[in-house]
Amino acid sequence: MENKVNIPWEDRPAGCKEVVWRSSQNPIIDRYHIPTSNSIFNSAVVRYGDGFAGVFRCDNRSVQMNIFAGRSADGINWEIDENPIEWKCGNTTMIDSTYKYDPRCTWIEDRYWITWCNGYKGQPTIGIGYTFDFKEFYQCENAFLPFNRNGVLFPEKINGKYAMMSRPSDSGHTPFGDIYVSYSPDMKYWGEHRHIMGPTPFPLSAWQCTKIGAGTVPFLTDEGWLMFYHGVITTCNGFRYAMGAAILDRDDPSKVLYRTQPYLLGPAAPYELVGDVPNVVFPCASLQEGDKVCIYYGAADTHVCMAFGYISEIIDFVKKNNCAGK
Amino acid sequence: MENKVNIPWEDRPAGCKEVVWRSSQNPIIDRYHIPTSNSIFNSAVVRYGDGFAGVFRCDNRSVQMNIFAGRSADGINWEIDENPIEWKCGNTTMIDSTYKYDPRCTWIEDRYWITWCNGYKGQPTIGIGYTFDFKEFYQCENAFLPFNRNGVLFPEKINGKYAMMSRPSDSGHTPFGDIYVSYSPDMKYWGEHRHIMGPTPFPLSAWQCTKIGAGTVPFLTDEGWLMFYHGVITTCNGFRYAMGAAILDRDDPSKVLYRTQPYLLGPAAPYELVGDVPNVVFPCASLQEGDKVCIYYGAADTHVCMAFGYISEIIDFVKKNNCAGK
Amino acid sequence: MENKVNIPWEDRPAGCKEVVWRSSQNPIIDRYHIPTSNSIFNSAVVRYGDGFAGVFRCDNRSVQMNIFAGRSADGINWEIDENPIEWKCGNTTMIDSTYKYDPRCTWIEDRYWITWCNGYKGQPTIGIGYTFDFKEFYQCENAFLPFNRNGVLFPEKINGKYAMMSRPSDSGHTPFGDIYVSYSPDMKYWGEHRHIMGPTPFPLSAWQCTKIGAGTVPFLTDEGWLMFYHGVITTCNGFRYAMGAAILDRDDPSKVLYRTQPYLLGPAAPYELVGDVPNVVFPCASLQEGDKVCIYYGAADTHVCMAFGYISEIIDFVKKNNCAGK
Amino acid sequence: MENKVNIPWEDRPAGCKEVVWRSSQNPIIDRYHIPTSNSIFNSAVVRYGDGFAGVFRCDNRSVQMNIFAGRSADGINWEIDENPIEWKCGNTTMIDSTYKYDPRCTWIEDRYWITWCNGYKGQPTIGIGYTFDFKEFYQCENAFLPFNRNGVLFPEKINGKYAMMSRPSDSGHTPFGDIYVSYSPDMKYWGEHRHIMGPTPFPLSAWQCTKIGAGTVPFLTDEGWLMFYHGVITTCNGFRYAMGAAILDRDDPSKVLYRTQPYLLGPAAPYELVGDVPNVVFPCASLQEGDKVCIYYGAADTHVCMAFGYISEIIDFVKKNNCAGK
Amino acid sequence: MENKVNIPWEDRPAGCKEVVWRSSQNPIIDRYHIPTSNSIFNSAVVRYGDGFAGVFRCDNRSVQMNIFAGRSADGINWEIDENPIEWKCGNTTMIDSTYKYDPRCTWIEDRYWITWCNGYKGQPTIGIGYTFDFKEFYQCENAFLPFNRNGVLFPEKINGKYAMMSRPSDSGHTPFGDIYVSYSPDMKYWGEHRHIMGPTPFPLSAWQCTKIGAGTVPFLTDEGWLMFYHGVITTCNGFRYAMGAAILDRDDPSKVLYRTQPYLLGPAAPYELVGDVPNVVFPCASLQEGDKVCIYYGAADTHVCMAFGYISEIIDFVKKNNCAGK
Amino acid sequence: MENKVNIPWEDRPAGCKEVVWRSSQNPIIDRYHIPTSNSIFNSAVVRYGDGFAGVFRCDNRSVQMNIFAGRSADGINWEIDENPIEWKCGNTTMIDSTYKYDPRCTWIEDRYWITWCNGYKGQPTIGIGYTFDFKEFYQCENAFLPFNRNGVLFPEKINGKYAMMSRPSDSGHTPFGDIYVSYSPDMKYWGEHRHIMGPTPFPLSAWQCTKIGAGTVPFLTDEGWLMFYHGVITTCNGFRYAMGAAILDRDDPSKVLYRTQPYLLGPAAPYELVGDVPNVVFPCASLQEGDKVCIYYGAADTHVCMAFGYISEIIDFVKKNNCAGK
Repeated sequence: MENKVNIPWEDRPAGCKEVVWRSSQNPIIDRYHIPTSNSIFNSAVVRYGDGFAGVFRCDNRSVQMNIFAGRSADGINWEIDENPIEWKCGNTTMIDSTYKYDPRCTWIEDRYWITWCNGYKGQPTIGIGYTFDFKEFYQCENAFLPFNRNGVLFPEKINGKYAMMSRPSDSGHTPFGDIYVSYSPDMKYWGEHRHIMGPTPFPLSAWQCTKIGAGTVPFLTDEGWLMFYHGVITTCNGFRYAMGAAILDRDDPSKVLYRTQPYLLGPAAPYELVGDVPNVVFPCASLQEGDKVCIYYGAADTHVCMAFGYISEIIDFVKKNNCAGK
Repeated sequence: MENKVNIPWEDRPAGCKEVVWRSSQNPIIDRYHIPTSNSIFNSAVVRYGDGFAGVFRCDNRSVQMNIFAGRSADGINWEIDENPIEWKCGNTTMIDSTYKYDPRCTWIEDRYWITWCNGYKGQPTIGIGYTFDFKEFYQCENAFLPFNRNGVLFPEKINGKYAMMSRPSDSGHTPFGDIYVSYSPDMKYWGEHRHIMGPTPFPLSAWQCTKIGAGTVPFLTDEGWLMFYHGVITTCNGFRYAMGAAILDRDDPSKVLYRTQPYLLGPAAPYELVGDVPNVVFPCASLQEGDKVCIYYGAADTHVCMAFGYISEIIDFVKKNNCAGK
Repeated sequence: MENKVNIPWEDRPAGCKEVVWRSSQNPIIDRYHIPTSNSIFNSAVVRYGDGFAGVFRCDNRSVQMNIFAGRSADGINWEIDENPIEWKCGNTTMIDSTYKYDPRCTWIEDRYWITWCNGYKGQPTIGIGYTFDFKEFYQCENAFLPFNRNGVLFPEKINGKYAMMSRPSDSGHTPFGDIYVSYSPDMKYWGEHRHIMGPTPFPLSAWQCTKIGAGTVPFLTDEGWLMFYHGVITTCNGFRYAMGAAILDRDDPSKVLYRTQPYLLGPAAPYELVGDVPNVVFPCASLQEGDKVCIYYGAADTHVCMAFGYISEIIDFVKKNNCAGK
Repeated sequence: MENKVNIPWEDRPAGCKEVVWRSSQNPIIDRYHIPTSNSIFNSAVVRYGDGFAGVFRCDNRSVQMNIFAGRSADGINWEIDENPIEWKCGNTTMIDSTYKYDPRCTWIEDRYWITWCNGYKGQPTIGIGYTFDFKEFYQCENAFLPFNRNGVLFPEKINGKYAMMSRPSDSGHTPFGDIYVSYSPDMKYWGEHRHIMGPTPFPLSAWQCTKIGAGTVPFLTDEGWLMFYHGVITTCNGFRYAMGAAILDRDDPSKVLYRTQPYLLGPAAPYELVGDVPNVVFPCASLQEGDKVCIYYGAADTHVCMAFGYISEIIDFVKKNNCAGK
Repeated sequence: MENKVNIPWEDRPAGCKEVVWRSSQNPIIDRYHIPTSNSIFNSAVVRYGDGFAGVFRCDNRSVQMNIFAGRSADGINWEIDENPIEWKCGNTTMIDSTYKYDPRCTWIEDRYWITWCNGYKGQPTIGIGYTFDFKEFYQCENAFLPFNRNGVLFPEKINGKYAMMSRPSDSGHTPFGDIYVSYSPDMKYWGEHRHIMGPTPFPLSAWQCTKIGAGTVPFLTDEGWLMFYHGVITTCNGFRYAMGAAILDRDDPSKVLYRTQPYLLGPAAPYELVGDVPNVVFPCASLQEGDKVCIYYGAADTHVCMAFGYISEIIDFVKKNNCAGK
Repeated sequence: MENKVNIPWEDRPAGCKEVVWRSSQNPIIDRYHIPTSNSIFNSAVVRYGDGFAGVFRCDNRSVQMNIFAGRSADGINWEIDENPIEWKCGNTTMIDSTYKYDPRCTWIEDRYWITWCNGYKGQPTIGIGYTFDFKEFYQCENAFLPFNRNGVLFPEKINGKYAMMSRPSDSGHTPFGDIYVSYSPDMKYWGEHRHIMGPTPFPLSAWQCTKIGAGTVPFLTDEGWLMFYHGVITTCNGFRYAMGAAILDRDDPSKVLYRTQPYLLGPAAPYELVGDVPNVVFPCASLQEGDKVCIYYGAADTHVCMAFGYISEIIDFVKKNNCAGK
C-alpha cells in the first residue's frame, strides 16, 4: 500500500517560467551506478514501505537489457540491486524472456504490478508481473502478441476490469506508433482494444508527429486521468523524444479530453542532448503529493533524471494548449 | 452443421507425380465474377446446407477490400452476393471496420465463425464474426491489437478454450512474420500467446525464409492438426508466395510435429505467375471427404483456384520431408 | 488546325458492360515497331492534315528515352520516323536535353504544342516545344525547375494565360505525387501554381493511393474539363498503374468537380499485365468525335494500345462514382 | 534603404589562422530567447533604419515552424516579436501557408524582399514577401512548384530581371540537392531555370558531396557575386552541414567562377556539435562593411551564431582553393 | 579436351534482322526437368566426350540452390543427374558450402574448371572446382573473400597466370556491380585485381545502368576476348536483366576494347517475361563452331534457353555500337 | 626493428575498477593538430628508432581522407607531417588510390608494413605498403577485391605465410560485417580465406550485434593472439562503436578461443560522445611493455585518444567474460 512519505521536490527556480522544471541534481542516477551497468534509464518508481521502491532498466556492458529492483528513503539516492530481478511463476508456467526493458510499476488493490517490454522468443511484447514486497517477484502471461512496447497499467480497475495502455510496434526502431487501451477481467486474457490517440498530423505539433507512447502511470485528477507521455519527431539525424501530457476520460480512457500541443519538457540539458542516444526525454513514472508531482524520466538512454511541477498548473496548461481532436 | 455432400474433386492427372495437383478448371472464380469486382481471391469455403457456402474477398474497382457471402451446390460454380456482408453486433457494440480481407471460416459447436483481417482505425488486426445461416452475420470484438493478419481459428476448442492462429505484422508489406496461437475462454478476451513457428533459417527452405502465415483452417488427422500455410521468399523483384503444410500437436498446437521443407504448390501456372500481384499461391480453405482434400487458394491476388490431394499422401510427404526443428 | 477525320472506333463488344473498352487490335503498336526500338508506349496523338500525327516515346535498345514523330491516316496504322525529333530553338537558345519521354500534344491557337518529361542536366522536368507541321520542331524553355513529370497543357488559354498541369516529383521512382496547375502569360515564365488533387486517402480508392499524374490533354464538355489520368497503388511487388477520369472547373481547373472513385481501366489484358514493367495502363492522349472518345494508352511500358467509350457515359460514370472531396 | 551603421565585428583572435572565425559571444540568440520558442536558428539579418532588422525562424514548443520579425541596434542584441509575422496580400490573394522556415532577406530597389521555405498544402516550396518597414508585410505568389527549399534572391536585378537561387528537393530529408537560378520579370512568373552547381563528386570535397544549398544573399565583389552556402555529407550517424563560399559570374550567375574545395566553417564548437540536430553550421545572412563581413548562421538547428572574416581574404581563399569545374 | 561435335544451331528465321536470335525450342530445359527441381536456369555447357556436358543450377522445391552434372549428345536434350554434384577435396580440405549457384565451366590445359557462387558460412563468394570426366569432382579453395558473384575463368592462362572475372557484391540483392579481373599463379592465391568495367553512366545505356556481371566464358577472336555479359536496370517494379557483349584485350583483359551500347538480347519472349523472377535474360555459357555461336542463358530464373548468332556479325555489331570509354 | 623505449603510461586512477582506463590527457591529438586537418583519428602507432612512429588518418578540410607519417619521442606528443605520405612502387606498378584511411602498422621480419582502407577506382579495399624508415614508403598490390575495410596484419608469419584480418563490406555505411583471415605466401596473392567471427546473435552482446571489425595489430600472449576490436550497435540515432578484445589461436587464428561479451571501453567521455560522428571508440594500435598495454583509439571520428591496461588483467577479463561460441 502506498505511504505518505514526502516526494522529492525542488521549488521552481527563480526566473523560471516553465510549467515543468528539472532537478538541480540531475542526473540523479548515473550510467555506472552499479558495477555492471552501461546505462540506467527509463525506470519506474513507487512509494513503498517507509520510502520508495523502484524497478530500474540497467543495460549491462554487454548491452543486455534487464530490470533491477531498488530502494530509496528519499527517492533521490537509490540502492539498486546488483543482479536483475528473479521471477517465480505467477499465473503462468511460461516465463520465457529474452530481455526486459522500460518497466512501469503501480499499486492495484493488493499488490504492486509491474509491466515492461518483454522479449518473447526475441520479439518485443508486454510482460506483466507482480510483487508484494519488492523481494519476491511473480511473472504472469504476456499481455499481448508481439510486437508491442510501452505497456502502462491504470492504477485501478475501470468498469471492473484491469486496463492497460500499450503501443503496438514493429520489430525494429518503429517509425510509427499509437496508444491503445485494452481490458482484462483477470490479468490473463485481454480484449476490447480501443484506440486512444496517435501521432499528430503534421504540422499541428511536430515534436509528436512520428510516434507516441504511454509514459507514466496515469493518476486521477478532477479532470480525469493525467498521464505524461513521450512523442517523437524524426530529424535528419534520427529520433528526438520529448514529453507531453494528456487527460483521459475517467470511465472511458479511450476518450482524450485534452492533450498538450507544445511539449512540457524537451531535450535541452546537456545530459539529455548527449549520451548513448542523443536527444531523449522519456518519462516512465511520477510521484504525487498534494498538488506536487515529481516525474522520473530517462535522459539520452543513459541516466535517470527528475523534473517537478504543480498538478494544477499542468492541468491548466494542458487545457489551454489542447490539441486533442485537431 | 457440416453436411456430407461430395467435395469438388479431380483425380490426379495421368503422368502427374505431384502430391497436390491443380484443378483443370482453374481459375474457378475470375476477377470480374461480380459486376463491381477488380479481383476475387484469398477466400473461405465451408460445407453448408445442401452444398457449400463461402466468404469471398472481392476487391472492388476502387480497390477497396471487403468480404462477400456466396453459395454453391458443387463448390465450383459460385453465386456471390453483389454487396458485401452487413454486420450486426455480436459480443460488442463497436464494429468499426475500415476494410476487410482474407477471410477464413469454420464451424465450431453451434455456428460458423469467420475471421478476417480487419482494419480498425485503418490498422490491420483480426476481425471475428459469426453466422448461423450465411444470411445474418454478427461481428465481435477484434481479437488482438494491431498489427496482425492471417487469423485462423481451430475448428474445435482445445483444452476448453477457443484457439486461434495469427501472424503479428507491421503496418505495411511486412517483411517478417511468424505464426502464433492464442487462446480465449469466450471469443472476447485473448491470451496465452504461444509461438508456433517462424520463417526458416536460410538456406534450409528458402521459399519460406521471409515470412509465413496460417492458411487453411486446420483439421484433425491421426497425426495431429494438418494445416496448409503460405511461405514467402523475397526475390529481387518482390515477394513470391508458395504453399506448404504442417502437422501440429493435437493438444498443444504450439508444438510443430512436422513441417514441409519443400513447398507443396508453388506459383507455376499462368494464372499464378501473372495478375495483380505476380507469383502468389495463397491457401485459405480446404474441404475434406474421406482421404480426399480440396484446397481453395488465391492466385496472383486476382482469382480463386482449387487444388487436390490425398490426405494420407500429404501426411506421408510432410513426415518424409520434415524440416521442423532444423 | 484540327480536322474532322473519323477517329479510330470499335463498338462496345456484345456482353461488355464496361464504360471503357479495349480495342480488339491491341497492342496497335508493338515494341519493335521501328528497327531501333526496345519499346514504344506513353505516346501522344492528335488530328493533323488528312489524318493524324503523333509524338511517340520510343526507348531504343540502349534503353535511351527519346520522342519520335509519326503519321497515320486512320490513327491505328502508324508510320513512325526512325530517328528522334530534331529541335530548333524556340523561345530559348538552351535546348539541352539528356533524355525525353512521355510526350503529350495539343493544338493551341496557331500551332501544336508538345510537352514531355525533359532531362535537364539529367534531372527530369517539363520540356515544351511546338510545331506547325510535324516536320520542323522548336524547343522552348523548360517550364519548371526539376523534379517534375507528366506536364499536360490545356488546349486553350484560361483567363488569358496558358495553363499546364504537372506532377512535382523526386529524382527516382517517386513514391508520391499530386497534380498541380500553373499559368504562363507567354509560355516562358510560369507561376500561380495551384494544387488540383492528390492521391486518395486510404482506403477511399486504393488504386490511386500512392500517386497520380495527369494523363490525356483535357477537353471541354458541358460539365467542365474532362481528363483521363493515371493512379498508382504500391503492391508488395511494386507499382500498379490504372486509369481514372476527372472533371475540372472550366474557369478554375484547380477545382475538381468530379473524380472517379473506381478506375475506368485497370491492367487486366495480357499485354498490360506482362512486359518491361508489368501492370501498367498509362493514358497519354485522346481523340474525340461527337460523343465518342478514343483513348491512347501505354501498356506495361512496352506497347501502345487504344480504348473506347462514349463521353456522355463517362461523364455519367464520373459523376455517379465521384470521390472528389471525400 | 540600407544604412551605414557599423556591423558586428570582432578581430581575429590571437593565434587564429582561420579565414573565418567565430564570435566569442556565440550563440548570440539562444533557443529560448522568446517565451514560446523551442529553437531560433537559420535566420535573416539586414541593415535597417538606425540599426538592423531581422527575420527569424523560431520553432515553437509544438515544433511548428514560423518566421518572426526582430530589431537590433547593434546586430547582436535582438528584440524578436513574440508573435509570428502576419501577412497581407501582395501580388496574390492566395497566402495559404502550412509553415514557414529558413528566411532570407534583401533590399531590392525600393523595399525589403523576404524569401523562405513555405508549406503550400503542406509541401515545401519558396515563399516570397516584402516589407517597407518591418511592420507591415505582404505575401506574394510562391515562386515555384514544390518541392523546393533555400530560395535566395540576388540583391539587384540581373539583365533586367529578378533572379533567385533555389534548391529543388523532395518531400522529406532530401538526400540530394543542386543550386539553380531562375528569373522573373515581375516577381510572379518565373522561368529560364539554370543549373549553377551540385554536390561534388566523391572524393573531391566530401563535406559537400550529399547536397548543397544557397545560404546568404550574395553580394557583389570585383570578382563577381560572393555567396556563402552550405554543403552536406552523410555520415553513418546522419547529415553534417558545413559552410563554404562561391563566386558567381556577375552577369550570368549560373557560371561558377570559383568554389571552395575546403569548407570555411565546419561544426566544431560545442553549440554546433550538440543541439536539436547535431553538427550543423547553416549560413543565412551576411552584413558587409568595407572589407569586413559578418556572417549569421544557424547552429545545430538550435541557436543563432555569428562568424567574421575579411572579404578580400575570403576571395583569396576561394580562388586558391577552387574546385569549380573539377 | 574439347571435341568437334556440331553445336546446336538454327538458322536466322526469315524476316528476322536481329544479330542474335532465339531457339524455336525454347525453353529447352523446363523448370520441372528433374523430379526435385523448382527451376533450372543459369547453367554451364561445354563440349565433352562425344557430345556435351553441363553443370546445371537446379533449385529444388525447398528452393535450396545447388549444381548438378548433366550430359547430352546434341546440346539440346539433356540428362541431368537427380542428385547434386558430390565433391572431393581439391587443393583444400575446407569444402564448406552453404549453397551453390550460377555455375560456369571451361577447359584449361588438362581439365574442366568449374566456378560458381559458393555460400561460405552463408556468405556468397566464388567457389572453384575441377573435373576430368564429369563423374568425379574436386573442390578447391574459394577464390575470394565474400561478397562476390559471377566468377568466370578465362579458358587459358594469361601471362602465365590463371585469370578470373568476378563481380564484387553485397550480402543481398546487390544494387551495384562492376566486373573485375584477378590473377592466380596456382588457382589458390589470387591478386592483381583490376577493374574491367562498371555500369554505364545514365543515360548512355540504361539497360546496364544498375549493375553488370560477367556471363559466358570468353573466347578468343581476332579482335580479342569476346564475352557475353548481363546488365541490369532498376524499374519501378524491380530488376530487369538483359544481355550484351564486350571485347577485351587479349593480353590485358582489364582493357575493354568494345562494349555494346544496345543490348543483344532483352527479355521479350513469354518465358523471359514471366517466371519466378520476371524479365531476366542471363547468359552463362556459349559453344562455338566456326563462325557460329550458341549461347545458353537462364530465362526468368526458371528455365534454360538458347540463342544463336554469327560471331563475325556480333563482333561487327559490338564495334559499331561501342560505348566503351563513353 | 622495435625498440625498448617506455610506452606511454598512466596508472589506474584511484577508485577506478575498470580493466581499461582512459588517459587523463585525452584527446592527445586534436582535430586541428595540423594546419589542413578537419579531424585526426583511427591511426597507427609503432615503436621506431629512439621513440615512436605513426601513420595518421588526417581528413583535410575538404574532408578528403589520407594518411600521414608522424614521429614522437614519448608516444604522446606527436609531430605529424603536413603532407600525406608519398608512395613509390613496391610489388606493383599500379598505385592508384582515390583515398586512404584507417591505417594500421606492424613490423614483420625486416620492415614496417602498413595497411589501410584504400580507394581503388573509388571502391574501398585493403591497401598494403611498407617502409624501412618512415621516410620512404612503397605501395604494393591491393590485397583483395573491393569491398573491404579494416585490414590488419599479424606481426609475424603463421605457418610460413603472411596473415591478414579484414572485414568484407559493401559500398556504403555497411550494416553488417564479420572478421576474416586470409593468407599470402608473398604479400601479393591472397587466399585460404577463413571466417574468424561475426556480430553476436541478439541479445547475447548487443554492443557488437550489427558488425565488428579488427582493430589493433594482435600480439602474442601465452593464451594466443590478443586483439582489440570494435563492435557496433544500431540505435535509433545511428551506429555506436565500442571496443572489445578477443584471443585467437596461435597457429590457426580463425579459431576464437575467447571473446569479450561486455565491451572493454564504450563511448562515455565527452570527446567520444560528441564530434563529427558521435559515440565512437575505434581502436587501431597498441604498444606493449611487459604487462602494460597502451591502446590508441579514434574518438568520435574526430581525435586520437589513449587508454591503458594490464595485459594479464585483460586476458583474465576476456576469459571470464567469454562469449565465443555462444
